[in-house]
Amino acid sequence: MRTQVGIIGAGPAGLMLAHLLHRAGIESVVLENRSRDYVEKRVRAGVLEHPTVELLRETGLAERLDAQGLPHHGFALRFDGVDHRVALTELTGREITVYGQQEVVKDLIAARLAAGLALEFEVTGVSVHDLDSDRPRIAYTDSSGAARTLECDIIAGCDGFHGICRPAVADALTVFERVYPFAWLGVLAQTPPSHEELIYCYHDRGFALHSMRSPEVTRLYLQVPPDEPIERWPDDRIWEELGTRLAADGFTLTSGPIMEKGVTPMRSFVAEPMRHGRLFLAGDAAHIVPPTGAKGMNLAIADVRVLAAGAAAYFSTGRTELLDAYSDTCLRRVWRAEHFSWWMTSMLHRDPAGDPFDQRLQLSQLRYTAASRAALTSLAENYVGLPFDAPS
Amino acid sequence: MRTQVGIIGAGPAGLMLAHLLHRAGIESVVLENRSRDYVEKRVRAGVLEHPTVELLRETGLAERLDAQGLPHHGFALRFDGVDHRVALTELTGREITVYGQQEVVKDLIAARLAAGLALEFEVTGVSVHDLDSDRPRIAYTDSSGAARTLECDIIAGCDGFHGICRPAVADALTVFERVYPFAWLGVLAQTPPSHEELIYCYHDRGFALHSMRSPEVTRLYLQVPPDEPIERWPDDRIWEELGTRLAADGFTLTSGPIMEKGVTPMRSFVAEPMRHGRLFLAGDAAHIVPPTGAKGMNLAIADVRVLAAGAAAYFSTGRTELLDAYSDTCLRRVWRAEHFSWWMTSMLHRDPAGDPFDQRLQLSQLRYTAASRAALTSLAENYVGLPFDAPS
Repeated sequence: MRTQVGIIGAGPAGLMLAHLLHRAGIESVVLENRSRDYVEKRVRAGVLEHPTVELLRETGLAERLDAQGLPHHGFALRFDGVDHRVALTELTGREITVYGQQEVVKDLIAARLAAGLALEFEVTGVSVHDLDSDRPRIAYTDSSGAARTLECDIIAGCDGFHGICRPAVADALTVFERVYPFAWLGVLAQTPPSHEELIYCYHDRGFALHSMRSPEVTRLYLQVPPDEPIERWPDDRIWEELGTRLAADGFTLTSGPIMEKGVTPMRSFVAEPMRHGRLFLAGDAAHIVPPTGAKGMNLAIADVRVLAAGAAAYFSTGRTELLDAYSDTCLRRVWRAEHFSWWMTSMLHRDPAGDPFDQRLQLSQLRYTAASRAALTSLAENYVGLPFDAPS
Repeated sequence: MRTQVGIIGAGPAGLMLAHLLHRAGIESVVLENRSRDYVEKRVRAGVLEHPTVELLRETGLAERLDAQGLPHHGFALRFDGVDHRVALTELTGREITVYGQQEVVKDLIAARLAAGLALEFEVTGVSVHDLDSDRPRIAYTDSSGAARTLECDIIAGCDGFHGICRPAVADALTVFERVYPFAWLGVLAQTPPSHEELIYCYHDRGFALHSMRSPEVTRLYLQVPPDEPIERWPDDRIWEELGTRLAADGFTLTSGPIMEKGVTPMRSFVAEPMRHGRLFLAGDAAHIVPPTGAKGMNLAIADVRVLAAGAAAYFSTGRTELLDAYSDTCLRRVWRAEHFSWWMTSMLHRDPAGDPFDQRLQLSQLRYTAASRAALTSLAENYVGLPFDAPS
C-alpha cells in the first residue's frame, strides 16, 4: 500500500493534517489504535484560540462549531474573593470559543468519512521504518488482524505523548521537561455554569477553575497534590472544596450530578527538533503544556498548519525549504505557549514547596496584572492566540 | 534634647524625609554615623524614576538634577547580539533620569545645611528606646564624644539594611527573603558611554549591563558568581568579558581607566510591617531589591513621601489614619517593585542551577517581550515608575 503522507494518530493533529492535505490535493492515510467511539468521547481541552477557529472556518469545518460553540469575550481572574475581568475582545479585538476537543474530532472524522478518505481505527502494532530514506514505511496490523505495510513520502507522528513515533527517534531528540508539584482534579457536572465566563481563581488552598462545555454542562478543576488518588475525593468533598476556593461576594456555585472525574498531572515537555528524516512530529507527540493556558489542542492545530503548507510546497514543486524549516517554525510558537502556560500556572497555583516570598510575589503579580491595561493586554493576546505569523 | 521626628540615617530616605517634613513645618534631627564626605561619595544607584524626579522638582531640589541629569527615553534589551529598544517615553509618556544617588544626597545635604537645620554626622553608639510609648528616645554619642538623648514623637529608621533600627524591633517583624545565586561585578570607568542609552544584555555567559554616570563616565556590570573575589578580575579580564557579552553588530565597547570596581551580592528582602510602635522603617532598612530594576533609591523616596504625609496629618490635626496605614500603603509599592525586580533579574540572568528548560523559557520571554507592544508597555511602565497613587 502506498500514500503520500502516512499519519499516525486520529486526534486533532492527525485529523486536521489529513484535512488540510486533502484540500491541497495530497493523499494521506490516517491510522488510529483506538476506536472511533473512544476518540469521539475522549474529554480533553475545551478552549479554541481565535486563530484556530479562523482556520477551522476557512477550511469548511465550522458549521457545528458556529452553531454550538460558545464565544467568550472575557474571563475572570478571581483572588481575595474579588473578580477582575480580563476583557479579551476589548483588549485584543479577538475572542476565544468554548468547544470541546472531542467535538472538533467528531467534525473532522465526519468530514473525512464523508469524503470517502482513508481513516483506519483499531489498528495495532504500529511501527515506523526507513525514516532516513525517501520511502519511509509504516507497518501495522489492521482491525481485521491483517499485517499491512504503508509506503509513504512523509510520515506524520500525531500519536500523542504516549505514542510510538517520538520514541522511535528518541536518540536524535533533546528533551526539555518540567513536572509540576501538583495535579488537576477535573470534573464534568450536569449543571448549568455558575457564571457566564470562565473563572481562574487563586486561593490560599490552591487553584480552582470554573469552566463549561455547554449551557447545561459545567467543567470544574481543583489543584490537588500530584498522584492524588481520586478515591479521596467523593463528590461531596469536591463541591465543598470548590465552594471554599471559588467563594466571592454575589457568587453562588451551582452543584449537580458529577458525570466524570479524574486527576491529570501537570507537565511541560518539548522534544527538539520536531523532525527526524522523513518523520515529522506534531501536537502532543512533540510537546505538552500544562492545561492552565488552554494551549494544547491549539498548538497541535498550529503545527499541522505549518506541516501541511510544507508538504504542499514539496509535492507541488519538490522544494523542501518549508519542510526544512518546519521544526524551527513550530518551535517558536511552541516555546511561546510553553512560557505562557508556565507563567499562568506559576501565577495561579499554590506551590507546596514555595516560601512566603513566592506567595507575596504571586499576589503582587496578580494585583498588578488586574490593574494594568498593558499587563492585561499581554495576558489577553496570549490567551486568545497570537497570530500564526506573529514574530515570537 | 527634643524634636518631633528623630531620623536615623542620612541616605536618600532620611534626608528626603527631613526635607519633606521641613516643608510641612515639622522639626526633625538627622543622625548619621558616617562622615559627610563618605555619604556624598558613596556610589550606589543611578536611575531616577519619573515620579521621583517629579517629587524632587516639586520640592525645590532639582536645580542641579535638571542641569546635569541625563533624561533617557528608552533603553536596549540586547540578546542574540541584537538590540530591541524599549521606547519608554513613546510607550508611557514618561522617562527616567540618570543621576547618581550620591548627587541626590549632595543636593539634600546642601539644602538641609543652607536652611540651618539639624544634621549630625559621625555619631556613634546609636540606640532606640521606649518605642511603644509616645515619647520614644534615641541615645547616641555625638561627634565630639558627648553622650546625648533625643526625645521624639516619632522615630524614622532610615539607616539601611545594616542599620540598628530593624534589629531593634526584629521580634515583631516577618522577614521575606531571596538570595540570588549570582552577584554583580560593577565598574566605574573614565570613558564616554559606548551607547547613548542603557543596554540590558542577556548572554549565555551571563548578564551584562552598560550604563553611565555622565557623558565622560561609564558604569558597567557583569553577572559573576556570588562572593566572587574581585582579585580574580584584573581590568583586562573585565574589558574582555564585557566585550564578549555585549558584542553586537555595529557596537564597539570603548574601554578606559577603571576608577572603581566591586562585587555586590543580589538579594530580595522585605520586613513586614514597616512600623512598630513609634518607629517607622523606610528604604533599605525595610526592604532590598536586586539592582536590575533600578528601584532601590526610588522605593526609599516613595516610602518617606508616605511617611511625611502621615506625619503632617498627625502633627497638624492629631489624626493617625495615615500613619496607621503607612506600612500597608508602602508595602503595595514595595511588593510591586520586588516583583518587577525579580522578574527583570530572572529574565536576564543565567541561573547556574537552571536547566535547559529554564533557558528556553527565558529566551521565549525575551523574544516575546521585545516583539509585543503590550509586553513592552508593561515593562516600561514599571521601569519609569508607576504613579505614586497607582492601584497595585
